[in-house]
Amino acid sequence: MLRCLLPISFVFSISVATAQQHDQDSVQLRKLADEVLTHSTAYANLKILTKEIGGRLAGSPEMYKAEQWGVKALQAAGADTVYLQECMVPHWVRGDKEEVRIISKRRDFVPPLQVTALGNSVGSDPAGITAPVLEVSSFDDLEAKKDEVKGKIVFYNYHFNPRFIKTFHAYGDAFMYRADGASRAAKYGALAVIVRSMSHAADNFPHTGAMRYNDSFPKVPAVAIGLEDADLLSDRIRDDKDMKLYLHTSCRFLPDTIGHNVIAELRGSEHPDEIITVGGHLDSWDVNEGAHDDGAGCVQSIEVLRAFKALGIRPKRTLRVVLFANEENGTRGAKKYADAARAAGEHHLFALESDAGGFTPRGFTLTMSPAQRAKVESWKNLFLPYGLYDFSEVGGGVDVGMLNEALGTPMGELSPDSQRYFDVHHAASDVFEAVNKRELELGAFSMAALIYMIDRYGL
Amino acid sequence: MLRCLLPISFVFSISVATAQQHDQDSVQLRKLADEVLTHSTAYANLKILTKEIGGRLAGSPEMYKAEQWGVKALQAAGADTVYLQECMVPHWVRGDKEEVRIISKRRDFVPPLQVTALGNSVGSDPAGITAPVLEVSSFDDLEAKKDEVKGKIVFYNYHFNPRFIKTFHAYGDAFMYRADGASRAAKYGALAVIVRSMSHAADNFPHTGAMRYNDSFPKVPAVAIGLEDADLLSDRIRDDKDMKLYLHTSCRFLPDTIGHNVIAELRGSEHPDEIITVGGHLDSWDVNEGAHDDGAGCVQSIEVLRAFKALGIRPKRTLRVVLFANEENGTRGAKKYADAARAAGEHHLFALESDAGGFTPRGFTLTMSPAQRAKVESWKNLFLPYGLYDFSEVGGGVDVGMLNEALGTPMGELSPDSQRYFDVHHAASDVFEAVNKRELELGAFSMAALIYMIDRYGL
Repeated sequence: MLRCLLPISFVFSISVATAQQHDQDSVQLRKLADEVLTHSTAYANLKILTKEIGGRLAGSPEMYKAEQWGVKALQAAGADTVYLQECMVPHWVRGDKEEVRIISKRRDFVPPLQVTALGNSVGSDPAGITAPVLEVSSFDDLEAKKDEVKGKIVFYNYHFNPRFIKTFHAYGDAFMYRADGASRAAKYGALAVIVRSMSHAADNFPHTGAMRYNDSFPKVPAVAIGLEDADLLSDRIRDDKDMKLYLHTSCRFLPDTIGHNVIAELRGSEHPDEIITVGGHLDSWDVNEGAHDDGAGCVQSIEVLRAFKALGIRPKRTLRVVLFANEENGTRGAKKYADAARAAGEHHLFALESDAGGFTPRGFTLTMSPAQRAKVESWKNLFLPYGLYDFSEVGGGVDVGMLNEALGTPMGELSPDSQRYFDVHHAASDVFEAVNKRELELGAFSMAALIYMIDRYGL
Repeated sequence: MLRCLLPISFVFSISVATAQQHDQDSVQLRKLADEVLTHSTAYANLKILTKEIGGRLAGSPEMYKAEQWGVKALQAAGADTVYLQECMVPHWVRGDKEEVRIISKRRDFVPPLQVTALGNSVGSDPAGITAPVLEVSSFDDLEAKKDEVKGKIVFYNYHFNPRFIKTFHAYGDAFMYRADGASRAAKYGALAVIVRSMSHAADNFPHTGAMRYNDSFPKVPAVAIGLEDADLLSDRIRDDKDMKLYLHTSCRFLPDTIGHNVIAELRGSEHPDEIITVGGHLDSWDVNEGAHDDGAGCVQSIEVLRAFKALGIRPKRTLRVVLFANEENGTRGAKKYADAARAAGEHHLFALESDAGGFTPRGFTLTMSPAQRAKVESWKNLFLPYGLYDFSEVGGGVDVGMLNEALGTPMGELSPDSQRYFDVHHAASDVFEAVNKRELELGAFSMAALIYMIDRYGL
């Protein structure tokens, strides 16, 4: 019996110790939540970034303003050091012309469609393109109609699927039409493509976003249209067989230019050479204020540092806040950060990103070993009072993904409620007013809480 | 060994059977979700209720229009029967005068404060009230200053507490100032009260809502002001000792009038005499469109019936949709429903309410026996793919609460994400545009899913 009891007693004493530790952690997390919910500067910072600077695509004057703002905001938050990490960034500009019009013999007036060129797209001929339009519902449909494509503008009318509960799954499902639609159609002789926006929004905003060319085929212009116009265009195509479209865009690449990651550190007290990264991306599309995407992630990352500092929490590991350059159309900032980390032989314990919107958090996606994941999940009861219950999905973010790729660094991404994200994603509606103060703050707290636990207990 | 194995095998066969059942349930829930997310009429119904009818306080012409709309909407959803259940309702009217102005010898111009009379409040003297103002931070503070109250207007500047993660807890904490503030101050001779709105909103909308008088003390007028004006008023009180306020309201009660619960049924196939109620309240405050409060709950309840009908799900028990009259300032509809149920000896299995906003659902509050709660919680894995994880709190809704009180009926309420609810609650900002289509639909699906399971397995 004694031999049987000893291990039980041993287990008991461990679990009491763990319980006591977790009581302390619970108190610390509560302090972090109180601090963020009462004294956060995230919302005020977001207002400056969105309203005073605005859209900040790589290479734009606003990108430089945002970098300078980032340095000051991180200094004000209490960072030990703040510095810029230089990298070359692409410099795509929209130009002054974006027009798609229906050319019809019918006498009813149809105003020009609301369009936005897709990021990285070439522009049209200076005189624009006038051509018949071929609607396809999917790539399968395109293949079935490939003999009809030549000399036409292809309209991808693939619907964002409402059946996915998490809207990011609908995005994953539809993304390829925006990304690859132009080259897939150019392969069969298309002159340009129009893509139905990836959104559930009950409005007509077109949603831009990066596309990419397959160098095997001609580069043709690509634009997005909003949902109402997509339905209208589809109706017109069905009803008016002689209809043509006039498409005119003037977007183009200028030479690459210099951009910067903005980096700040709170130096670790026990293991300063072990680095925990937390970040969002500083660039945004040019058509909006980049509020949810990804002003929110930037100000939340800054808030993590501010809250630690304000509460006198000196991390054991070095906490590094990174405002990444050029996530939207090149990921050059993240590549630079990962390359530099590898070149310097840095030890990265964990990297956390916020780039899924400033909505009420529900958990985190995680990419790490099963043992590491189990460790994080063992903290679930500490997170649950804050509405964080979902640790089920594998994931990270695009930016910390580069670090994961380069060094195998375990990574994660904040998982906010996703229902409204694609209403505003890459559209003119992604503005400061679309962000709720408390939702933003709860996200910042959640990030601080996860980082607090990983800093304290390792991975 | 055999005696030992038998029970294990027995348990195994039960769990296989349960697993198979739950596979079927999982398929049915998926069908319900698909149906609601692709064919819901909830959002379109909400648009009619909010935009074509608008605010619909008990006794108002809009209340009658809403009742007629409810009948038609439930018929269109496919109900077996739809009927009106008559009840007397209070008839409080705001009148045409709501004004609070700062009277000061200082020369700077301060526009009138944005105010709204609290529901059920008496109006001021026809000429208005001019009096000094006493700011108190809480009832404790009022007690400490009770000798200073006489002849003054008391300003309750109690702050909505941002530390509560679920905003309903902040509401529970602050509610008493709106509800009881007038009589508590009148006890010491106050002439009127002004209440800081119960909201986290970053705006200046005043939030109305029901108050109640203690008949032992004089009835004095009560109004709410928005957060910006509350801060402004507090600053002025501190800086300008001679300041007075002019307060003028013309709200009053007219004689009680006739209203109706709107009730629809899908008759049960196996136990038609067992009733499952699902509902929201049809009335709203007069200052807004009653979109989240509680147009959302009404159209979600209608959607539950529509989705069942559209999928050919005939419930075993009778599903009864109730659009309750007069939740906001009297609860007369719910009282009538509960009284009638008791008088008729009806058997109510469960009652579900949606009256916490049309936001993304996170779970349900439940009031039932521990065994019943355990049964619901045993279905958690079926709900989790839809973001429903939180069954932890005791609760129901105000309307189904009456049934629970009268008959002990187990009850629940949809728990949506609460972060934005009190931004718009009882304020002019609670309009159709504040409701997101998918968030509303996910709530409707969640209600349908819980009712499907309780109908199928009982409680």
